[in-house]
Amino acid sequence: MTWGEWGVDYSANKMADLIQHCLGLGITTFDHADIYGHYSTEETFGEALNQLGTSVRAQMQLVTKCGINLKTHRRPDIRVKSYDSSRAHIIASAERSLKNLQTDYLDLLLIHRPDPLMHPAEVAEAFQHLKESGKVRHFGVSNFTPSQFELLADCTSLVTNQVECNALHTDCLFDGTFDQLLTADIRPMIWSPIGGAKYFNGEGTAVLRLRDAVQTLSAKYDDVGEDVILLAWLLQHPVGCHPVLGTTKPKRLEKARLALNLQLDRQDWFIILEAGRGHEVA
Amino acid sequence: MTWGEWGVDYSANKMADLIQHCLGLGITTFDHADIYGHYSTEETFGEALNQLGTSVRAQMQLVTKCGINLKTHRRPDIRVKSYDSSRAHIIASAERSLKNLQTDYLDLLLIHRPDPLMHPAEVAEAFQHLKESGKVRHFGVSNFTPSQFELLADCTSLVTNQVECNALHTDCLFDGTFDQLLTADIRPMIWSPIGGAKYFNGEGTAVLRLRDAVQTLSAKYDDVGEDVILLAWLLQHPVGCHPVLGTTKPKRLEKARLALNLQLDRQDWFIILEAGRGHEVA
Amino acid sequence: MTWGEWGVDYSANKMADLIQHCLGLGITTFDHADIYGHYSTEETFGEALNQLGTSVRAQMQLVTKCGINLKTHRRPDIRVKSYDSSRAHIIASAERSLKNLQTDYLDLLLIHRPDPLMHPAEVAEAFQHLKESGKVRHFGVSNFTPSQFELLADCTSLVTNQVECNALHTDCLFDGTFDQLLTADIRPMIWSPIGGAKYFNGEGTAVLRLRDAVQTLSAKYDDVGEDVILLAWLLQHPVGCHPVLGTTKPKRLEKARLALNLQLDRQDWFIILEAGRGHEVA
Repeated sequence: MTWGEWGVDYSANKMADLIQHCLGLGITTFDHADIYGHYSTEETFGEALNQLGTSVRAQMQLVTKCGINLKTHRRPDIRVKSYDSSRAHIIASAERSLKNLQTDYLDLLLIHRPDPLMHPAEVAEAFQHLKESGKVRHFGVSNFTPSQFELLADCTSLVTNQVECNALHTDCLFDGTFDQLLTADIRPMIWSPIGGAKYFNGEGTAVLRLRDAVQTLSAKYDDVGEDVILLAWLLQHPVGCHPVLGTTKPKRLEKARLALNLQLDRQDWFIILEAGRGHEVA
Repeated sequence: MTWGEWGVDYSANKMADLIQHCLGLGITTFDHADIYGHYSTEETFGEALNQLGTSVRAQMQLVTKCGINLKTHRRPDIRVKSYDSSRAHIIASAERSLKNLQTDYLDLLLIHRPDPLMHPAEVAEAFQHLKESGKVRHFGVSNFTPSQFELLADCTSLVTNQVECNALHTDCLFDGTFDQLLTADIRPMIWSPIGGAKYFNGEGTAVLRLRDAVQTLSAKYDDVGEDVILLAWLLQHPVGCHPVLGTTKPKRLEKARLALNLQLDRQDWFIILEAGRGHEVA
Repeated sequence: MTWGEWGVDYSANKMADLIQHCLGLGITTFDHADIYGHYSTEETFGEALNQLGTSVRAQMQLVTKCGINLKTHRRPDIRVKSYDSSRAHIIASAERSLKNLQTDYLDLLLIHRPDPLMHPAEVAEAFQHLKESGKVRHFGVSNFTPSQFELLADCTSLVTNQVECNALHTDCLFDGTFDQLLTADIRPMIWSPIGGAKYFNGEGTAVLRLRDAVQTLSAKYDDVGEDVILLAWLLQHPVGCHPVLGTTKPKRLEKARLALNLQLDRQDWFIILEAGRGHEVA
């Protein structure tokens, strides 16, 4: 499992605590993007790493993303939310991430969103440069459709496609995204694996119906907890999801690990699917 | 052509008559699924076969399907309509179909619906086991999208994808389903090849417009009959459809064969397409 | 760049002037279809070519299309708008185009629309016949989806897919059409590359928003002109578009060439995309 919910405005101290808590739980991968926290979170994380000392880096995997330009006071040169997957931008962004994170390599760099102006050969060149210089070990993409994935995978080796998937957002299961990855034996990373904000705070009929179903199942499975049920649901898909956990609450992080060993009954899996989609299977 | 309309509640006697009528017409393939008649039809068909004597089996091809779990009083253990494409379920379902149908082999076994929890390698294993034991000769799927088909075809040999197609339901012609099969030289089986209930009893403008067009064409082609026109329309597609006929009326079964030799004028084909879709081609 | 807007009812004289004007500008490819001008434009163009003398043919590339049957008083045998991609129709249509255009070869022949009755092997045969007889040099398609393209490309060599693309019609950028062509290193021809009638005369909010954005950018880029901005926007896509210009106004044809050397700032490209689609990128 991976941790990464960078909307929160943590101090380096508090982040250092959270990192240690995660490592203690065996959650050793941390998911970043240059733009998280309006281009600020990587830097705070880097300070936290610095506080924790150099030995901690070898125990963790750092993931980050590049390719989105965000309109924010921290980037006054950006006039419109846009993408940049040029060679120069990818390399500069990765190098800035290294500096912010206070590390000399990234375990994984992702193109954050499919850019209609992407030249696949140019991205491949940037990746090769970053790999050969030892700055990035592996590469992937995020939020790519199957044809976008194929376009880039034809030019360079991709280890993942990080996409949204949860019981309230099941497109990936049916639109070919997971089919493609399963065929290619590539495991997706999953952002919003529980659909947290929507699941816990939403009010639509779909959410209410799903909460009802999940609460009933949680009771059935020894009160394991709703988020554990939903994570186990995701982990049961044969594509082999790597969920990116969002919670910052130590207790919930601890409980999340329970999902790794929870096998839902097949019919219970479909009860959740039906509740999330609002109709039974065909 | 194939026969299979198992909603009807036939006695074994009456089914034996129907089988003999079909065989006499050269309709030798019978399309089943474990769930038809709420898990009852295979058994009645098996009794009918038993009445007809052992020699009849060699003159026919038996198709059945597995993978759906239906909520019904005959399966009190099923709490939710759901899928199961596990190795154990596929093998057990095929073996139960053999017992119900009173035969020692199936000509073709299909996965009835695409199961998001399908492990393609596991399905391939189940198929191999059934093939090596002589219980099933060929394998296929039903209602699969192109990416779902490709996922499984990558692991095992599939001889068909049984899908819905008729002049009121033309998605397969345009969404890549037939393109994929034509490229791979695989012929689809077609369920609802006429769109019978909707075509004959529907009331929407599309249906009325289509009926009007088909009646005019039937008159043009020597009063061959509306269902013959619609079957000929389907058979004219280069993908090479195997329609699964639904009617139990001897006269209509006899007439259906006429479609095999009826070549519609190309413009007449597009008159039907336009009437069914409600707009001319682009 | 290519010229082809054949709705206009030009005399052969006037067309000869336009052809010479285009050639003078380096616009040497002319885009036809059998059906343009209700099956009349090729003939007028042929008369214009005849007036200009035989030497002009070698300086130009002639593209035409076949496969649509149009209801028009000039084709009383056509009862319904329909397609015909039979071997006989393709060959007869190409030969009629040669005669109409008063030339002995076509540089490029396209199947105008995807025909659900298309037998890919039969199309391939027709293409081979036309190639071997020296009548057509290259082949392609128009308005094909990725799976339709793949179906035919599996049987014969295709050099392009001519599709609609402009800032008001961006499907190709996101539905896999351009991804497929970029992967295969095939350059699309683009019809309606500016979205002219809609862009200049439309009234919806999308059009007004886009016009506003394009006018601002035109001012920024030395008042180069709105159509030049929009063409440059299209040309910047890595797939390598060949736009088919529609204007018959000499001044606008001259200006269009400016787009070939105009590099838009990447953010300006996204300003146009956002204005055309009505929402920022994800």
